[in-house]
Amino acid sequence: MSSAIDQLICNHCQTVFPLNDLRWKCTCGSYLDIQFKATMDPEIIQKQSHSLWRYHQAIPVTKSENIITFGEGMTPLIEIQIQQKSVFLKLDFLFPTGSFKDRGASVLISKAKELGIEEVIEDSSGNAGAAIAAYGARAGIRCHIYSPENTSPAKLAQINAYGAQLYQIAGDRENASRAALEKTNNIYYASHVMNPFFMQGTKTFAFEICEQLGWKSPDMVFLPVGNGTLLLGAHIGFKDLIQNDIIKKMPRIIAVQSKNCAPLYHLMHPEISPIKNSGNSIAEGIVIRHPRRGKQIIEAIIDSHGEIIIVSESEIKRTMTNLSKRGFYVEPSSAVAVAGITQYLPKINKSSIVISTLTGHGLKTNK
Amino acid sequence: MSSAIDQLICNHCQTVFPLNDLRWKCTCGSYLDIQFKATMDPEIIQKQSHSLWRYHQAIPVTKSENIITFGEGMTPLIEIQIQQKSVFLKLDFLFPTGSFKDRGASVLISKAKELGIEEVIEDSSGNAGAAIAAYGARAGIRCHIYSPENTSPAKLAQINAYGAQLYQIAGDRENASRAALEKTNNIYYASHVMNPFFMQGTKTFAFEICEQLGWKSPDMVFLPVGNGTLLLGAHIGFKDLIQNDIIKKMPRIIAVQSKNCAPLYHLMHPEISPIKNSGNSIAEGIVIRHPRRGKQIIEAIIDSHGEIIIVSESEIKRTMTNLSKRGFYVEPSSAVAVAGITQYLPKINKSSIVISTLTGHGLKTNK
Repeated sequence: MSSAIDQLICNHCQTVFPLNDLRWKCTCGSYLDIQFKATMDPEIIQKQSHSLWRYHQAIPVTKSENIITFGEGMTPLIEIQIQQKSVFLKLDFLFPTGSFKDRGASVLISKAKELGIEEVIEDSSGNAGAAIAAYGARAGIRCHIYSPENTSPAKLAQINAYGAQLYQIAGDRENASRAALEKTNNIYYASHVMNPFFMQGTKTFAFEICEQLGWKSPDMVFLPVGNGTLLLGAHIGFKDLIQNDIIKKMPRIIAVQSKNCAPLYHLMHPEISPIKNSGNSIAEGIVIRHPRRGKQIIEAIIDSHGEIIIVSESEIKRTMTNLSKRGFYVEPSSAVAVAGITQYLPKINKSSIVISTLTGHGLKTNK
Repeated sequence: MSSAIDQLICNHCQTVFPLNDLRWKCTCGSYLDIQFKATMDPEIIQKQSHSLWRYHQAIPVTKSENIITFGEGMTPLIEIQIQQKSVFLKLDFLFPTGSFKDRGASVLISKAKELGIEEVIEDSSGNAGAAIAAYGARAGIRCHIYSPENTSPAKLAQINAYGAQLYQIAGDRENASRAALEKTNNIYYASHVMNPFFMQGTKTFAFEICEQLGWKSPDMVFLPVGNGTLLLGAHIGFKDLIQNDIIKKMPRIIAVQSKNCAPLYHLMHPEISPIKNSGNSIAEGIVIRHPRRGKQIIEAIIDSHGEIIIVSESEIKRTMTNLSKRGFYVEPSSAVAVAGITQYLPKINKSSIVISTLTGHGLKTNK
């Protein structure tokens, strides 16, 4: 990794802070991003271990001894047919904790170790909490995880098993965030949404796809979006690849939301009146009514010449059933992006390289 | 793959049958093994895809187009310390269905496709059933899965999701086997125990370990044993590596059983009277009272100069808790072998390369 310009920068007032500062938000209250020159050389990369840490030179964790890893990443990229159109699925449910959130947790907890942090707080609807708890356990960092009371029992049992302190908060996802925020004055906030090091992990999704395609960019990437931690990471990753002259163009990012909870879709389409509905979805991982990086997500989508689409509960359920009957057993949030592809198919060029991702294991589903 | 001597051979009367015969047992009633010359060349292997199918030349599936895969295998091999002794854990819970059984299912279902089979039967306490169902789903092969009625709900839901026909059989694991056997006259028996192609998949466990160690053999391999499908596969795999002159010696295989259900231990130690107990264990995956390949398992252990040890329920529980507090969230059967290492530690040379495996994901545990 290079140094020179490495720093934290406020997304609102552009104030900068050293990269190793222990803060997760600006003095103005807004969130921080990372300015960091990622170095990538395919010849060096191909000689590295078969995990996401093969891209260590592109990740702002300085010393190898601080890396907290289970050998995760480089998940399979599998070609399937959706109505005669070839599509690649990235099997990101094959992470140690059963979801793609391990990408972010591995990098964020490694950075926390590098910063000498011994205790962290996180709030999550389940998957990110499990990921932070697992990597915290491996690092010997104490974790406090705040989850809404309606979180899947399987996810709560998992967070508990890792030895994290679990707090079940009455009310919705936002209440859990508020409860966690109250404690962040004294304890480092390992938030998968607010802490920018998390996206320095999820960006490896873009690296792996391009490497697995033979260092080529796909044309379109369909992603499920709630808080946008994967989308923002992928956008950073594709930018890193372009800056290193490895790919030529940014793929179009098509964000997919549940029709029942689609704040980003309505932010991008103010002309469309939101339909009154329950606000809930079986895709529990992306039910986020007020995505804290919402504006940034929209900017990333526009930058990629992408768009946001919405899918109904019945489209999500049908897709999930179809996927499992083809051997891909995933949780409902994972079916969202594939449902999006199916809906968008008439607008997709036959020769386009199209990617989607299966983000969480079916074994995580509420029983 | 080579041909010449490729054939099925009866383990009892040595009658031989063509490798592509549709039978799974000998006319004498005993089970079959495979005589097959596995070809392995590290230089070729390292250029292949990063899945267990990189060893295709060593697997008796002829045509690449018959391979049924999710890109599985090459699971991480992670070094941890157990009381200051370095031990490698093979993370075999990171398979598409959440257990190592995918190794066998991928090869067995690929072979079934090659044989033109459209429908299969399997009986299982859960994990092998899920694996056969998933690969069957991907192959378009109809699956009938027989499971004991006390199988974990998470595993039953998973088998159902893949679209397999599930039969819950009253009574124990053996009853489920008997119910399945009754149907095998008309439908191909894709048994992970009886069908020898399954072990041609689990043998890739040995290949991966040796490759990940730099084409070196470990000194000791600790494995949980119920029906022995992993142990028998690993033994075949190490033999293949020796025959190809890639490793020099067979590692000692230390089989670990639950004290509550240890028929193999008592077969090997007739001088020790079995303790009266429930016969049940939280390690449900290895509660097999009459392992159908029992004699063969003992022979493999003796051939490796290994042995069988037993661990108590409290050792299993303590180890499972310790593992999850270090970030490894696995089902109880997975903790058995690591508990075995802990018990055996005083007899292990400090410089020995010791391997164990985590066979099933914690998300599979009965809730």
